[in-house]
Amino acid sequence: MAELAGVVAEIAAEMAARVERGQVASYIPELSKVDPRHFGIAVVTMDGQSVEAGDADAAFSIQSISKVFTLTLALGARGDALWRRVGREPSGNPFNSIVQLEREHGIPRNPFINPGAIVVTDAILAGHAPREAIGSILRFIQFLADDDSIYIDQAVAKSERETGFRNFALANYMKSFGNLDHPPELTLGVYFHHCAIAMSCRQLASAGRFLANGGRHPATGRSVVSSERARRINAMMLMCGHYDGSGDFAFRVGLPGKSGVGGGILAIVPGKASIAVWAPGLNANGNSLLGSLALEKLARAMEWSIFGR
Amino acid sequence: MAELAGVVAEIAAEMAARVERGQVASYIPELSKVDPRHFGIAVVTMDGQSVEAGDADAAFSIQSISKVFTLTLALGARGDALWRRVGREPSGNPFNSIVQLEREHGIPRNPFINPGAIVVTDAILAGHAPREAIGSILRFIQFLADDDSIYIDQAVAKSERETGFRNFALANYMKSFGNLDHPPELTLGVYFHHCAIAMSCRQLASAGRFLANGGRHPATGRSVVSSERARRINAMMLMCGHYDGSGDFAFRVGLPGKSGVGGGILAIVPGKASIAVWAPGLNANGNSLLGSLALEKLARAMEWSIFGR
Amino acid sequence: MAELAGVVAEIAAEMAARVERGQVASYIPELSKVDPRHFGIAVVTMDGQSVEAGDADAAFSIQSISKVFTLTLALGARGDALWRRVGREPSGNPFNSIVQLEREHGIPRNPFINPGAIVVTDAILAGHAPREAIGSILRFIQFLADDDSIYIDQAVAKSERETGFRNFALANYMKSFGNLDHPPELTLGVYFHHCAIAMSCRQLASAGRFLANGGRHPATGRSVVSSERARRINAMMLMCGHYDGSGDFAFRVGLPGKSGVGGGILAIVPGKASIAVWAPGLNANGNSLLGSLALEKLARAMEWSIFGR
Amino acid sequence: MAELAGVVAEIAAEMAARVERGQVASYIPELSKVDPRHFGIAVVTMDGQSVEAGDADAAFSIQSISKVFTLTLALGARGDALWRRVGREPSGNPFNSIVQLEREHGIPRNPFINPGAIVVTDAILAGHAPREAIGSILRFIQFLADDDSIYIDQAVAKSERETGFRNFALANYMKSFGNLDHPPELTLGVYFHHCAIAMSCRQLASAGRFLANGGRHPATGRSVVSSERARRINAMMLMCGHYDGSGDFAFRVGLPGKSGVGGGILAIVPGKASIAVWAPGLNANGNSLLGSLALEKLARAMEWSIFGR
Repeated sequence: MAELAGVVAEIAAEMAARVERGQVASYIPELSKVDPRHFGIAVVTMDGQSVEAGDADAAFSIQSISKVFTLTLALGARGDALWRRVGREPSGNPFNSIVQLEREHGIPRNPFINPGAIVVTDAILAGHAPREAIGSILRFIQFLADDDSIYIDQAVAKSERETGFRNFALANYMKSFGNLDHPPELTLGVYFHHCAIAMSCRQLASAGRFLANGGRHPATGRSVVSSERARRINAMMLMCGHYDGSGDFAFRVGLPGKSGVGGGILAIVPGKASIAVWAPGLNANGNSLLGSLALEKLARAMEWSIFGR
Repeated sequence: MAELAGVVAEIAAEMAARVERGQVASYIPELSKVDPRHFGIAVVTMDGQSVEAGDADAAFSIQSISKVFTLTLALGARGDALWRRVGREPSGNPFNSIVQLEREHGIPRNPFINPGAIVVTDAILAGHAPREAIGSILRFIQFLADDDSIYIDQAVAKSERETGFRNFALANYMKSFGNLDHPPELTLGVYFHHCAIAMSCRQLASAGRFLANGGRHPATGRSVVSSERARRINAMMLMCGHYDGSGDFAFRVGLPGKSGVGGGILAIVPGKASIAVWAPGLNANGNSLLGSLALEKLARAMEWSIFGR
Repeated sequence: MAELAGVVAEIAAEMAARVERGQVASYIPELSKVDPRHFGIAVVTMDGQSVEAGDADAAFSIQSISKVFTLTLALGARGDALWRRVGREPSGNPFNSIVQLEREHGIPRNPFINPGAIVVTDAILAGHAPREAIGSILRFIQFLADDDSIYIDQAVAKSERETGFRNFALANYMKSFGNLDHPPELTLGVYFHHCAIAMSCRQLASAGRFLANGGRHPATGRSVVSSERARRINAMMLMCGHYDGSGDFAFRVGLPGKSGVGGGILAIVPGKASIAVWAPGLNANGNSLLGSLALEKLARAMEWSIFGR
Repeated sequence: MAELAGVVAEIAAEMAARVERGQVASYIPELSKVDPRHFGIAVVTMDGQSVEAGDADAAFSIQSISKVFTLTLALGARGDALWRRVGREPSGNPFNSIVQLEREHGIPRNPFINPGAIVVTDAILAGHAPREAIGSILRFIQFLADDDSIYIDQAVAKSERETGFRNFALANYMKSFGNLDHPPELTLGVYFHHCAIAMSCRQLASAGRFLANGGRHPATGRSVVSSERARRINAMMLMCGHYDGSGDFAFRVGLPGKSGVGGGILAIVPGKASIAVWAPGLNANGNSLLGSLALEKLARAMEWSIFGR
């Protein structure tokens, strides 16, 4: 096994030099302004190391990575009853597909495609005011990362709301099947805000530690979720965390991970490490091109694949 | 961590006593005759233990579990070029669905759904006589298991051929897209025969060892596949090994596994163990009901989940 | 050929006595209150006869029948450019399906399924205030029927708005593909209002006369649309006017027709007659059960099928 | 109304001069050899006129047009029980789509898409030897056309059999749902042969007369089918006769018609005329480009649309 700091530095240098960097997400105007030349990486190991490289302290829009944290919160609030409203299977379709919803009567396939994450957000809202729900999600992430400076980028939230017709379609569609408790615009208000949370790689890797650590907050030792629930969230990340590119990510990287269209990926090495990478350019499946590549190289060098050495 | 032999014995006793045992597969007449009261389990660890319980020495039809071995063979013969003819993503559809083939122009989603496995078989056939291809698959499995008594159940093969109209449909459909090199009836002849291989849990657990052992045959130390390829086959098993119940299996068991409608499951604990279970009754997704449950209990007791302890 | 008045009276008597009357639409609360025992019929012939029977003067919610009139208006305003935003093919799917919209990139299959009619409404709106657009649709229908007492049932419009999540989903979905010029809630506001127009069979048969009369208003002789456009609207009615039961309606009745979930059907005998029937109970495809049957009997008795005597 | 002979001559002259002629079908090697410069037309009126122009006496492969005659035969043999095995609705999908078969459990949408026509052929086969079934279909068409020189092009039949993997897929797929009584290869053997029948426009227009004539053979006055059945076959032709371009054909031409990939179209003017056109180049939906255009012009000039003048 190689030495972590050296590996990370080498990967960061290689990624900085790459010419082919993918396409920055354009469907949200605010995201399209991001410079594709960014690359950041942060690794926190369970034995106490922290290694960063590149733009590890620059905040980016975590987008769908927030779905890992909202799933955690919703499972805490609702327990396994949540699984009556959302499935646990890969979708075999793009992240914003509406086809399966029709075939499966408004029950989304998993919590990491858009309709599934909207249901999860609806479960967190639970009759509270949207503002309160947004606050509780943000505070939960700040707590996990031990960092109160994490914030919501209001310009991104506003940009999503104004152009998120597909998400309005998905939410209204599920509402028509009775799988949304609140008016679609309220649930989506919360959804757009948690997708607009801005974090750095350093903060994101910190926030993911509990999933690598059997569900416990490493700093305090306090249990965030049970070890079984942590394993299960990791399983969902592996199966569904990269939309219709999840199989390829498992094949090449071999780690539970969740990507966002902002170009970030959170990856978990169970028992060993929490990793965050950020490179804004995306591949055809909407996952960070260089982020995936960096994780592939890191997992190989460190022999971290969960599928064997 | 519990003691393996005790855990296995306890699980076998519990499974033997279960009343709800699922439905034995009925679509192939030969399979429908199997007694649902069977339960067998065999575990081989990388440190040399072998533990069996129940009907661990009774031969059953491995059916789709054979797809793990044909994938291994085809990757050996064709290398990564194979992935141009078959994808690596979960299908989000039943194992014999033809819908995605239409949408995706004859390229099956992964090597473990029926159309994908038919393409893999076609890649093994490679101009040889069907009889030779069948022989080479059988000998490969005998070699992996160190057991020349493994055989093809000709009555099952014949039964499949006579009732396998859906598979004839899938094969002809892919042929119409040019994704089959041989006449459909030749490729399917080989396919029906390798699905009809009969093995006991003990033999199957032995045959799976190389996947738990970095690609090397444990008895000889000889490399069957590279360690990277072994990891990747494990990843495919986790993502796609249980049809449209793969997410649930990952969620509950947390191990790469491949099921067959004969009621068998091969599961891999990377670096640690190869496991075979057999219980003929199936759940709604076509996977062994008690086999899945037994693996869930075993993985929990032994802390073998790849998603953390 | 039989004598019209006698045929109509006989059919009305038979329909009044039928026990099996189908299911009244329940998805809009206001519609579910309608008594299923109603049956009305009105026929206006091009040679000047008017024959009515049953509840021919009771107002009912015309619902999707309004789509014939909005299509006529939109073609008048936009001409054949409208066909760039909506297709002309039967959908092969339920009226509110969203699947084809995904496959066909937000272009609905025809103007008579819900998404197509929403696009047509959007084309009529054309930057005007919703109130004006609603007014112009209502006035157009009043003009066609020579009857200013036709009105919009505001309770129905309100009921649709409050429960129309599926239509909000469809509209937002098309908006995400750029196939809606206005905010979805504005377009849907107009849509819900024109679906809530209340008319009697007598009024509806009058309003349909121009389609039987080569596009000309029979009272004034004034051209509403060209004869070619009248033929083409009739063709669309035949192909797509009964959702996924259009083939069966053509097979059994053999006339261009448009149904609504309020239980009304407008049918056209080119060159000969305009017919309106109303019976609130629906068949499995969402078309009036007794209305379809009455039209089948009428067309057969009068030898009015467009497919031959 | 214009004078028929002059109209036909003018249309034929115009079509001969057209540069854009569509693409000749390439999926069957034998068909791809046909010269796209052909154009033929024949019209037989119920009042005894026969008008031809262009290559009206050249034999071409009628392909799917044969489905009109096999449907007629199967309804004669099985009556309305046939409709339990095949639907009457437009498909909203390409002619060889397999998607709807999966969703609708092996019941094809209508008798004019490939799977529906295969079921119809299976119903004609009815336990007879394939050779006999082929003979009875051919003799029926010869009888309708009063012309024993109509023949089966064996080279085309052989070519279809060798490349018809999609049809083998469809047939096996329906067989897996129990909707085929015979082994797929037997039913397809008959199917490939009746699609390979070769006819000239003159012969085809003659063969279609009974559908324009209330079901009676014009020469003998003998009833081929009841007038109701003739109307219903016409309705099916209008709804489903041009695959996923049926709506457009109804919109532009306004006549019941059935096209074949050989470039022929049979169109019926109920009570008035039977028309056959042939131009080998196809449009995007697989229907004759110039054939459709010629029919549009003819129907307009003669005021023959069934949707009004």
